[in-house]
Amino acid sequence: KHHSLAVIPGDGIGPEIMNEAMKVLQLIEEMHGGFKFDIQSFNWNCEYYLKHGKMMPDNGMEILKDFDVILFGAVGEPRVPDHISVWELILPIRKTFEQYVNMRPIKLLKGLESPLRHKSHDDLDFVVIRENTEGEYSNMGGRLHQNTPYEIAVQNNVFTRYGTERIVKYAYEYASCHNVKRLTAATKSNAMNHSMTFWDDIVKEISQQYNTIETNLYHIDALAAYFVSNPEKFDVVVASNLFGDILTDLGAAIVGGLGLAPSGNINPEQKYPSMFEPIHGSAPDIAGKGIANPIAQIWSVGMMMDHLGYSELNHLILESIENVLVDGKVRTPDLGGTATTSDMGDAILERLRTL
Amino acid sequence: KHHSLAVIPGDGIGPEIMNEAMKVLQLIEEMHGGFKFDIQSFNWNCEYYLKHGKMMPDNGMEILKDFDVILFGAVGEPRVPDHISVWELILPIRKTFEQYVNMRPIKLLKGLESPLRHKSHDDLDFVVIRENTEGEYSNMGGRLHQNTPYEIAVQNNVFTRYGTERIVKYAYEYASCHNVKRLTAATKSNAMNHSMTFWDDIVKEISQQYNTIETNLYHIDALAAYFVSNPEKFDVVVASNLFGDILTDLGAAIVGGLGLAPSGNINPEQKYPSMFEPIHGSAPDIAGKGIANPIAQIWSVGMMMDHLGYSELNHLILESIENVLVDGKVRTPDLGGTATTSDMGDAILERLRTL
Ligand SMILES: CC(C)[C@H](C(=O)O)[C@@H](O)C(=O)O
Ligand SMILES: CC(C)[C@H](C(=O)O)[C@@H](O)C(=O)O
Repeated sequence: KHHSLAVIPGDGIGPEIMNEAMKVLQLIEEMHGGFKFDIQSFNWNCEYYLKHGKMMPDNGMEILKDFDVILFGAVGEPRVPDHISVWELILPIRKTFEQYVNMRPIKLLKGLESPLRHKSHDDLDFVVIRENTEGEYSNMGGRLHQNTPYEIAVQNNVFTRYGTERIVKYAYEYASCHNVKRLTAATKSNAMNHSMTFWDDIVKEISQQYNTIETNLYHIDALAAYFVSNPEKFDVVVASNLFGDILTDLGAAIVGGLGLAPSGNINPEQKYPSMFEPIHGSAPDIAGKGIANPIAQIWSVGMMMDHLGYSELNHLILESIENVLVDGKVRTPDLGGTATTSDMGDAILERLRTL
Repeated sequence: KHHSLAVIPGDGIGPEIMNEAMKVLQLIEEMHGGFKFDIQSFNWNCEYYLKHGKMMPDNGMEILKDFDVILFGAVGEPRVPDHISVWELILPIRKTFEQYVNMRPIKLLKGLESPLRHKSHDDLDFVVIRENTEGEYSNMGGRLHQNTPYEIAVQNNVFTRYGTERIVKYAYEYASCHNVKRLTAATKSNAMNHSMTFWDDIVKEISQQYNTIETNLYHIDALAAYFVSNPEKFDVVVASNLFGDILTDLGAAIVGGLGLAPSGNINPEQKYPSMFEPIHGSAPDIAGKGIANPIAQIWSVGMMMDHLGYSELNHLILESIENVLVDGKVRTPDLGGTATTSDMGDAILERLRTL
């Protein structure tokens, strides 16, 4: 069986960690024997932008459309404004390919300690399901009376019933399939009185169809505090684009850091390719040093395999990562060690080989 | 010297903790002898709403306008939608009285342990200066095609140069007066490409006037993660209305909980009354049980005294609170003890008397 895969390593540490992910992919291909990846790599990044004035060729989305899956590293570097690198590459992919589910596990891996004093592995194991196509990331708005004292900037948060229903339904379906009894929805309807009251209404409507699941609507401020004080409260958290973004970086922090957190940008209907990527950025400050933690990128390969129907390979990858962490000898600096990116990748490969 | 004070205890635990705050206020008045508070209390809360169909009388703002300061408890209870209780009471006060600075100290008090394993008192001592009148809390927007599949809800985030400049300037001035060398501004300009790029521009413009202060712009998602992983990075954090809201609940969590965190809603020009309140809500779940922690409310009295020019009394109040915490005998349930709200208030009074 053949799977076509588009690889976009991006900027900064992106190519470094992608390198390790590719080694893992190659190994599981060999080990499994039942599938083959047709890989094409794209150098669409800030370097490309500085040369061509755009982040990808005009037919970039056309090209990507025909792939089964996309593996993404990270984009962004100081010479290109972030909103350009983001709005011309990662956000169009998420939106155009209707990857409306951004699935982000928050899980304290074996071998690691949470920075939260009193929390254990049992307390830290949930998923955040983030809306990924609309809401606060609408690109609608602008500025008026520029450079005068009367200047204003407006950003419209746009929530559609279409977009909100599909993510909330997905979250309930996910909870229901995984036998989860509690679903938490992030809101801020007390202050965002148009958008988030609408969000709440839809959550309440859809919750009616899932009587066995307890629904909790928490304001985003309180919810962020609970991530620190009571993470054991959570199983499935559904959140808007911005709130999900904030909660998942925070979620990564409470399970040990941004270097560990993977994500899937999923088009559940499989009409378009889904995309897998670490939730961290391109980390220009440590780029080129070969010390970035490749775990988030490697785990993203695991999530991709799961999406393609090889959930046992996802488990194997995660087990290998955890074995290395439990062993504790090979750790990148973010985890308190001195290992390089490729030391870490190699250690994971090593384990994978023997599982 | 006379100070006129409007007291709005509100709902839920509001009146319970306000009671303790009033005892503290009375004591410092007696102890100091140099001033007198003319106190008027207002029962504007959800109960009032259920009777009168509004959260305050039509001339409520007129009445409040003439006070020097306002002490606020918390509003909200299940029978009244949150956005009503909030948009008809607390938000109009903040906006109409141009309390554009929401000052929120994040400080690990002596005697308490942070839930963050590796962080000490030195690591956890900074302030968040939150914009308090505009931005994401604009009340602009609405719904279209209600109850059809094509329904949309729009919430406009509206940032004015006027509103943004004044809060950013205030933050730099604050940093400069307090000899602070680093200022952090929360942004999300990579995704919120109209509003937050504007915010960034203004931060950069104003930063030019403060050459000795290092400015760091962090995206809100990363910043939330840093609050957990590297809180020692921060001295003064300036943030928009929503981002400041999220960061300060999170901030309260990393220093031990929402029951401890005070705030000042300040009109720096003193054209209108400023308002002091705990950052937590009315906590309907524990209301009436007499177990709420009154510290946030009592410390808010301290911030009020500071605002009125009695900074030594603020220090005394904070010292009394810390003495009680260090002593450790009297603690409300949120801090792991069994003390009641009034036990805690009395213990603080006791200390205050002997300082
Ligand atoms: C790069 C940025 C726009 C992006 C986001 O906010 O979605 C990132 O933070 C993420 O979480 O994937
Ligand atoms: C009650 C609510 C609207 C309020 C806010 O979001 O400002 C509260 O959370 C706060 O932080 O003071």
